[in-house]
Amino acid sequence: MNPGDAASAGAVVVLGTVGLDYIETPRARADGVLGGSATYAALAARFFARPTVLSVVGRDFAPAHRGVLAQRGVDLSGLEVADGLTFRWGARYAADLNSRQTTFTDLNVLEGFDPAVPPHAARGAFVFLGNSEPHVQLSVLDQIEAPRFVLTDSMNIWIERDPAQLARVAARSGCMVLNDEETRQFGRDDNLPRAAQKILDVGAAAVVVKRGEHGASLLDEDGWFFAPGYPVSGAHDPTGAGDSFAGAFVGSLAEAGAADAAARRRAVVYGSVAASFTVESFGVARLAALTRAEIDARYAEFSDIVAF
Amino acid sequence: MNPGDAASAGAVVVLGTVGLDYIETPRARADGVLGGSATYAALAARFFARPTVLSVVGRDFAPAHRGVLAQRGVDLSGLEVADGLTFRWGARYAADLNSRQTTFTDLNVLEGFDPAVPPHAARGAFVFLGNSEPHVQLSVLDQIEAPRFVLTDSMNIWIERDPAQLARVAARSGCMVLNDEETRQFGRDDNLPRAAQKILDVGAAAVVVKRGEHGASLLDEDGWFFAPGYPVSGAHDPTGAGDSFAGAFVGSLAEAGAADAAARRRAVVYGSVAASFTVESFGVARLAALTRAEIDARYAEFSDIVAF
Repeated sequence: MNPGDAASAGAVVVLGTVGLDYIETPRARADGVLGGSATYAALAARFFARPTVLSVVGRDFAPAHRGVLAQRGVDLSGLEVADGLTFRWGARYAADLNSRQTTFTDLNVLEGFDPAVPPHAARGAFVFLGNSEPHVQLSVLDQIEAPRFVLTDSMNIWIERDPAQLARVAARSGCMVLNDEETRQFGRDDNLPRAAQKILDVGAAAVVVKRGEHGASLLDEDGWFFAPGYPVSGAHDPTGAGDSFAGAFVGSLAEAGAADAAARRRAVVYGSVAASFTVESFGVARLAALTRAEIDARYAEFSDIVAF
Repeated sequence: MNPGDAASAGAVVVLGTVGLDYIETPRARADGVLGGSATYAALAARFFARPTVLSVVGRDFAPAHRGVLAQRGVDLSGLEVADGLTFRWGARYAADLNSRQTTFTDLNVLEGFDPAVPPHAARGAFVFLGNSEPHVQLSVLDQIEAPRFVLTDSMNIWIERDPAQLARVAARSGCMVLNDEETRQFGRDDNLPRAAQKILDVGAAAVVVKRGEHGASLLDEDGWFFAPGYPVSGAHDPTGAGDSFAGAFVGSLAEAGAADAAARRRAVVYGSVAASFTVESFGVARLAALTRAEIDARYAEFSDIVAF
């Protein structure tokens, strides 16, 4: 990547976690590796635009971990350092890597985090609101003047606890990004296409349904778009697949300077490409070593995979 | 359909069950409705070619049920009528319709069934070997001289009981059609792309992986092809989706008189189209009332759904 080029593209603001992951897959285990939704999203977005991370870490956060982001053009001026320990999260994956169990979540310094958008990123940004309490997502939106596009992630606990608050976030979002279960839950319908439609009805302009290894689909006013799951023979660790999808999605819109229907379809494919690389290694390794040329080559493969 | 046109296309031979289904979904229930793998496959294949059913029913099989098939151009000269009761099968679906529990299976006259291919269909046919004991599938293959293309379905019990025998069927198949779980099981690999590759390694020329509502993918010597799951807002009953997929797949190859890579990709889309209609009603109702124009219109929609 040429950071000079990226800086000239639209600003990307990424709200999410930066933390330490404790991951167990059937074939490997890693303790205390760099992780977090903002980490994965920023590492994917940086191929298209300069991402500004909104997050918080503790005094224990290693300079080496910070360097992984900083050396790849990620703007850390919105990464607060607070007294206390960095956010930690553990998960164990099933044999087919399709389901996982969260083994623990230590919020630590993330508890009560009140993100402040750096002034240079506060106008006309392309925004990814990673999975957080809806009121935190709204606080970020309130700090950004005329956001160009807002992509919003969430999860079961926020859908259960306060769906009305989440609907207020959705109504201010250009797109929600949810997995199939979350879509059924937030849309309150067991039928996935109907559930997705109901999310548009509460005000989101579009919804991306992540279908794990089977791909991702987008519903907007133009109808459905479907991108396949890239067949990854060497899948190792699904951690961060969804967040790198989101980062590449928003990043590619920022690079294009557009968020129309055609740009959104391309964004789904770029997101799928980023996610497919992420799962090829444990943690962020593959994503951190990735090149734009590899992204573009796999993007072209997606055309072949669906051609008939 | 114009039966005259269909008769001029390649012959399609469909091995499978013709029976009575007892289905329970979250919203409805039906007892003793027409079902079976050969029923669904033939009702889908008939839009493209004249299907000959290889199956057996009991003396209790209602003329009205026979009429559903006969009146739609399905050749029943290979449908044996035996002393005893018709095959019966019951299933109950989960709320999201994605998983089901078989409530009972009464093989009845199907026990020991030894299919005889009618002479007029015994040469150069396009064949669908519906889920059956592998030795029955092999017996049908032995009766067909120079089959043009063989599509083979199977299920967990045959994979568990005699994978070597099933591998012999696979080695004589142009394509295996399995769901994602069966693919992992037969390929003996938790990674779906690798498992599919291993099925090619045992000799199948191609494999279709059915991914339920998420679509279907094809792996052959040209690599992967992926067709999305059509977003069916009014999904009622998934029964027969896989078999109607298979019937339309083989039927479309027969109509084209070809089974090359391009024809196989189109066949996956025709299969997906047929399956998407099948689930829109309880039992065979939607498929029985379907028109070729509806099929072709939805086929065109698939191009739009994946375009970027």
